[in-house]
Amino acid sequence: MASIFTKIIKGEIPSYKIAENDQCFAFLDINPLAKGHTLVVPKKEIDYLFDVEDELYRLLFTFSKQVAKAIEKVIPCERVGIAVLGLEVPHAHIHLIPINSIYDIEFSRPKLKLSEEEFKDIASGIRQEYEKINQ
Amino acid sequence: MASIFTKIIKGEIPSYKIAENDQCFAFLDINPLAKGHTLVVPKKEIDYLFDVEDELYRLLFTFSKQVAKAIEKVIPCERVGIAVLGLEVPHAHIHLIPINSIYDIEFSRPKLKLSEEEFKDIASGIRQEYEKINQ
Repeated sequence: MASIFTKIIKGEIPSYKIAENDQCFAFLDINPLAKGHTLVVPKKEIDYLFDVEDELYRLLFTFSKQVAKAIEKVIPCERVGIAVLGLEVPHAHIHLIPINSIYDIEFSRPKLKLSEEEFKDIASGIRQEYEKINQ
Repeated sequence: MASIFTKIIKGEIPSYKIAENDQCFAFLDINPLAKGHTLVVPKKEIDYLFDVEDELYRLLFTFSKQVAKAIEKVIPCERVGIAVLGLEVPHAHIHLIPINSIYDIEFSRPKLKLSEEEFKDIASGIRQEYEKINQ
């Protein structure tokens, strides 16, 4: 069965898309730890990040860097942090999270509740920056 | 002034080394969230991970994958997770953390206290696996 991320990539489930290339896709986490919290996934459905073959694995992290650069242009933060856990959805994904303290990367914290309008505005802002950087 | 990680890489400060290559270095975190918690750093002192130039950045993540594969051979865990925060030491570093739940990657949790013997045993086990995989 297709993972929820595969359904998002195919557009079968709506998402606040940030960017994509041939092999990777980025969209907002709808249970964000911070505004701008983004998920980066390979289009190919592989459960465990460290099982992704080297070439795609490198592409995924290079794409994540490009997305992170766009996030930090839009979201005020000290840094964009990275987290990879992979305990829930069996489709490798990289969390990019704007952080100001170590607490901003704790997944047991209550998630932000944002309106559709807020998600749309954030996604649109980051998408524009991504396109500016990578045009 | 050289960062604490540069001093570790140069051997001016002792560490429980796991592995190194031309441009990257891995060693145990001495304030670990879990047994086998490892730090991967570029030998070049760059503060922010997303400022590391693409080639070195990709090398760093490829090396991290090789180290993670060795960690999971030695430390019983669901996954090896990744965390990058970068709020404390101004020398980019990737945390590789054996995890079984989302709580295992929370940096505000009390750190494990391990004896020198335990650190040495863990490092030696992971180092041997790394060498086996990459010989």
